[in-house]
Amino acid sequence: LSYAGRMVMRTVEWRDGKIAMIDQRALPHEFIMAEYADYRQVAAAIRDMVVRGAPAIGVAAAMGLALASLQSLAKDRPALLRDLESAEKELRAARPTAVNLGWALDRMLRRAREVSLVSAGDVRVALVAEAQAMADEDVAVNKRMGVHGASLIRDGDTILHHCNTGGLAAVDYGTALGVIRCAHEQGKRVHVLVDETRPRLQGARLTAWELKQWGIPFTLIVDNAAGHFLRTGRVSLVMFGADRIARNGDVANKIGTYKLAVVGRENGVPIYSVAPTSTVDLALLDGDAIPIEERDPREVTDIGGVRIAPEGIAVANPAFDVTPHRYITGIVTENGIAYPPFDVSLPQLVESQ
Amino acid sequence: LSYAGRMVMRTVEWRDGKIAMIDQRALPHEFIMAEYADYRQVAAAIRDMVVRGAPAIGVAAAMGLALASLQSLAKDRPALLRDLESAEKELRAARPTAVNLGWALDRMLRRAREVSLVSAGDVRVALVAEAQAMADEDVAVNKRMGVHGASLIRDGDTILHHCNTGGLAAVDYGTALGVIRCAHEQGKRVHVLVDETRPRLQGARLTAWELKQWGIPFTLIVDNAAGHFLRTGRVSLVMFGADRIARNGDVANKIGTYKLAVVGRENGVPIYSVAPTSTVDLALLDGDAIPIEERDPREVTDIGGVRIAPEGIAVANPAFDVTPHRYITGIVTENGIAYPPFDVSLPQLVESQ
Repeated sequence: LSYAGRMVMRTVEWRDGKIAMIDQRALPHEFIMAEYADYRQVAAAIRDMVVRGAPAIGVAAAMGLALASLQSLAKDRPALLRDLESAEKELRAARPTAVNLGWALDRMLRRAREVSLVSAGDVRVALVAEAQAMADEDVAVNKRMGVHGASLIRDGDTILHHCNTGGLAAVDYGTALGVIRCAHEQGKRVHVLVDETRPRLQGARLTAWELKQWGIPFTLIVDNAAGHFLRTGRVSLVMFGADRIARNGDVANKIGTYKLAVVGRENGVPIYSVAPTSTVDLALLDGDAIPIEERDPREVTDIGGVRIAPEGIAVANPAFDVTPHRYITGIVTENGIAYPPFDVSLPQLVESQ
Repeated sequence: LSYAGRMVMRTVEWRDGKIAMIDQRALPHEFIMAEYADYRQVAAAIRDMVVRGAPAIGVAAAMGLALASLQSLAKDRPALLRDLESAEKELRAARPTAVNLGWALDRMLRRAREVSLVSAGDVRVALVAEAQAMADEDVAVNKRMGVHGASLIRDGDTILHHCNTGGLAAVDYGTALGVIRCAHEQGKRVHVLVDETRPRLQGARLTAWELKQWGIPFTLIVDNAAGHFLRTGRVSLVMFGADRIARNGDVANKIGTYKLAVVGRENGVPIYSVAPTSTVDLALLDGDAIPIEERDPREVTDIGGVRIAPEGIAVANPAFDVTPHRYITGIVTENGIAYPPFDVSLPQLVESQ
């Protein structure tokens, strides 16, 4: 990611036995780097949204497990594996909806269990290398998604975008916002309608911050205004990311995505979800079984430390919703774009790597 | 309106040649009464949303014109009428979308021009009385809407509600929230899903404040979460007010209403707009010609005085949207409930008074 015109750091980085992250809670006001030497702190950072975005929390969790391997006092491989399994549970429990977290931890555990690794030291070296490889792969995957998705964007398009799916939601570059960035880099004139994305305001805080640095023109709106722009013909396409995609193409994503998709389709505007194949959960036949995280009521009742609602009231704060596949025009992955029927196209793309 | 269990005052009141209003910007944290002795301050109070809600701003403007008649130094009736026409223009320009403002001012000017009024003094007395009569009528009209609308609510219903349409949006009692209040007073168990209504947070600040005092159970959600509750079958009906209704039933209302209506209909949930017949603009054949107010970008970029977005960015902040009539199940007025075809039923109800 760049800041004030220069490259600064990735969203999540491995630095000599520590994990460095951009503290996304402080943006756009302050650029703060947080460093963690304890995997439990990494789990807390995921839970508290120091780092957020499905691809980013996958890599953060993988690095967290690598860190756990260095923290473990185990002298042999079986003892280390036991410690890793316990750390893995803690990291996995940090957030329930995005499947990338579990995907990344599964991959790390598989690596740790490879029989070619003999000593505890072998496992530690392998896990640190694997987590770093996953970070590099994530950037490469995002750039491939960018190229596939940019083919959907025409010169002069206005793209309505939900939440943050930029470099900050991944290790770098971005998913849906990476697609828009790629189109911009190809010389297409694009305009982004950035919805603010209550309650955590990832659109107003993070997407606006990234687009401003990339020099891509955009207009910030409240989530409520998206329908007005869709109805009055000012949107060419709707793009967002995904936290988990079921085999049939149902997409769990940041709360508000469903409303946007329904109103987009109602107005004949194409709707694209952009996500790496690691977000696709082929084991789930449809979106009904995706766990929806319920977060702290204070995300709703307080904004920037200021109380907005009366005290002592009931609040519901689901962090995600499920958009049934019939509202989705296509799903952009690093292996190409899936179109309906998704239960045929998605398994093909996931397995084609 | 009541506060801490006791009746305090109406949203807008005439008090011995001054206008008293509840300053709605300070709620729910502080209960502040503002007093105005200059009609220009009344216009500013409408513009700045000290007072808001279509019925309330209608009565505030009527009282503002009564105030202007007292402020005028005119010695005879023709001179006073000239002063009133100039004051009327200023009051009318305060906010463009709600038609109640123009409706109330038209009625006041008609009264001022009645030939039975001979002297400037006659006109002044008549206007002060007319404005007070309009305030009383507004309360009576709201209560009649309440009874009509409450027939739509069954015991155990959950009503999804947008913006604030309570006593604070009118002189007292409320429009859509008045309907819910009436059902509650009839002993029906109701639960309200209160969406916060960005950017001005009338739901989180005002509707939550009113429902809490009325003892009606409710749950506060962000606007983005409404779709999740609609899709998962947890909403019996959607209710909101209106700022202007065209002859064909197209409804201009607080930004976000359109999205809610589309997603409600998509899920088979009935959608009701509740508004007095003074909100119906029979001269407009459809909603396309309704002017949509664009408000200060700081309503989007700042919340409670806290900046949330980066500096120096483009913002669009339409305060209202238009919901085409095909998404509206019925329109509740003080003269009964209009059903499609609205271009037949609405004129009948408007003229039946």
